[in-house]
Amino acid sequence: MPSPKRSSIRVALDVMGGDLGPREAVRAAALISKTTTIHVLLVGQRATIEAELAQVDHDPSRLQIVDASEVITMDEKPRDALAAKPDASLLVAMRAVAEGDADALVSAGSTGALVLAAAQVLPRIPGIERSALAAVYPTRKRTSSPDPFALLLDVGATVRVRARDLLFFAYMGHAYASRISKVARPTIGLLNMGSEPTKGDEVLREAHRLLAGDPLLNFVGNVEGNDIPTGGADVIVCEGYVGNVALKMAEGVTEVLRGLGKQAFKARLGWRLGLLLLASGLRQLKTTTDYREYGGAPLLGFRAPVIKAHGRSGASAIANAIKVAAKAARDGVCQEIERAVAGFLAREGGDPGGPGAS
Amino acid sequence: MPSPKRSSIRVALDVMGGDLGPREAVRAAALISKTTTIHVLLVGQRATIEAELAQVDHDPSRLQIVDASEVITMDEKPRDALAAKPDASLLVAMRAVAEGDADALVSAGSTGALVLAAAQVLPRIPGIERSALAAVYPTRKRTSSPDPFALLLDVGATVRVRARDLLFFAYMGHAYASRISKVARPTIGLLNMGSEPTKGDEVLREAHRLLAGDPLLNFVGNVEGNDIPTGGADVIVCEGYVGNVALKMAEGVTEVLRGLGKQAFKARLGWRLGLLLLASGLRQLKTTTDYREYGGAPLLGFRAPVIKAHGRSGASAIANAIKVAAKAARDGVCQEIERAVAGFLAREGGDPGGPGAS
Repeated sequence: MPSPKRSSIRVALDVMGGDLGPREAVRAAALISKTTTIHVLLVGQRATIEAELAQVDHDPSRLQIVDASEVITMDEKPRDALAAKPDASLLVAMRAVAEGDADALVSAGSTGALVLAAAQVLPRIPGIERSALAAVYPTRKRTSSPDPFALLLDVGATVRVRARDLLFFAYMGHAYASRISKVARPTIGLLNMGSEPTKGDEVLREAHRLLAGDPLLNFVGNVEGNDIPTGGADVIVCEGYVGNVALKMAEGVTEVLRGLGKQAFKARLGWRLGLLLLASGLRQLKTTTDYREYGGAPLLGFRAPVIKAHGRSGASAIANAIKVAAKAARDGVCQEIERAVAGFLAREGGDPGGPGAS
Repeated sequence: MPSPKRSSIRVALDVMGGDLGPREAVRAAALISKTTTIHVLLVGQRATIEAELAQVDHDPSRLQIVDASEVITMDEKPRDALAAKPDASLLVAMRAVAEGDADALVSAGSTGALVLAAAQVLPRIPGIERSALAAVYPTRKRTSSPDPFALLLDVGATVRVRARDLLFFAYMGHAYASRISKVARPTIGLLNMGSEPTKGDEVLREAHRLLAGDPLLNFVGNVEGNDIPTGGADVIVCEGYVGNVALKMAEGVTEVLRGLGKQAFKARLGWRLGLLLLASGLRQLKTTTDYREYGGAPLLGFRAPVIKAHGRSGASAIANAIKVAAKAARDGVCQEIERAVAGFLAREGGDPGGPGAS
């Protein structure tokens, strides 16, 4: 049941996911009901949700409870958990989207379960075989964009991919960056081992050719690992294996630096004084470098937007994820990806001569 | 001409490579000649080398100039440069090793040219098809080792590899860590997207099986990106594409953090005072986090050790690289790798039944 354009967007919220328990999710939905026109489907154990709702100011006309008796926890193996718990809140929320009862989905639960449940339940955009999980992270100021955020995808929904999948990842990133971050012509980079078009293996060389020849994309060529944090492109595409390693590497570096800071704090009185004076500066640095603070990572490739909120999200982070999901649905991010893929397939089908033929 | 064991080790030094010019390399060799028993072959333009040697105290009995008329610069394409300049100092130094006139090689020149020249000129260890460039980097304190350094390989000599290549990379890392870093039983990790043995693609799963079944290696299983800087293993193996991205990602994160520090310095007087007090702490942090300061990255898989010194190396960094190269030659790192590979091939040939059969 498609909703009339610009009318209220309906977001299915997996209330039971997330490290901090259902209270944060329910409070997020209550806040959204009071401050926006978004409708939230609270998917989870009804008694729990009702008990939490009773404690917080909310607008019941914008909230709907969808009962789901089971919960998938972070320590379960995703495939086994999904098979064993057909009434898990995550699966019930996915079905609400698949059946048209919601326009988008938000979960702060297990990433592995989210990726797998979406693959099992949600309709894919025609032509797309691999979905992608995008990390949204802050970079140093980029010349291409006033937006502090950039996208790296895929960071874990795939392992290896074909050249064509990398092109489709670029369409996903292009649509998301231009509609959500309002970057007019987002720059696109292909993560490689050097800037020359001949770098990498045949998949990377073929992806370079496809990206360079695409009429929609603002492709800036190959980028390298250091271009991820420094902001070499608004959107960087890669296979899930390398994207996942790069993302976790950044986490590890941040963790080590914080540990060193603590050591310095213990080591010397002068440093301690310095650190106290620096405290507000360090807090700002942490905010700017910790990708976790930016909550929502979009899972793209399906006909509806899915936002993975960080497991440790509190109510305000989940509320932000709900707003981003609603915005992605309202602004037609998935429809734009669908048009780009259809355009490629039409050119490919109608134009076997390759670039240059009309 | 094999030298008698424990006699003077001969290291071929590519004098012309390196961003700082031949002076630093010549000074490094002069220092080595006065303080160790290592013989250095100074490979490069004779007149330049003689002019630099005349200005610095050295022991001529431990130095030998090998004339090479051409130079490969950092901005040349490696393949073209090697083809166009057969008398390049890098190639002449490689030939000295291949022909037994030197036991090891050091260059601070282009990494791409070094990897390609080694592949063209040096004999490989029997059974090894892919060489690996290893990054030696400091980590947080590891429980497995008193040594602050860990190894990540390959970081750029390959793009994609087979499972067997990853096993051989582990032999290389094991030999290097145990002989150079004196870690008794270095822990080995396979860089993957999760800890379960089933993670990744078929290459990674097969590599996990080979590594887990190997009698020589202290395999700790799959590790993830965050385990690289935090020290999840003494040796982490991966294909060159992902290793290269991870290494450069760390460079980029460090660069961004330094930039933020400078901004904070400008921003507020209190921060400025804090930074001044913290200066010595920050210098220590930089030293501990900047892999570049540790100079030599070994290129392994050949019958003689090759050490890539950083392009910006000064005399003392190059002297360190020469000492490491000599130590690797003296302690038989390449011979240990050769024995491990031969053992695997013998088990494989004699034991088609796989693990369990005797």
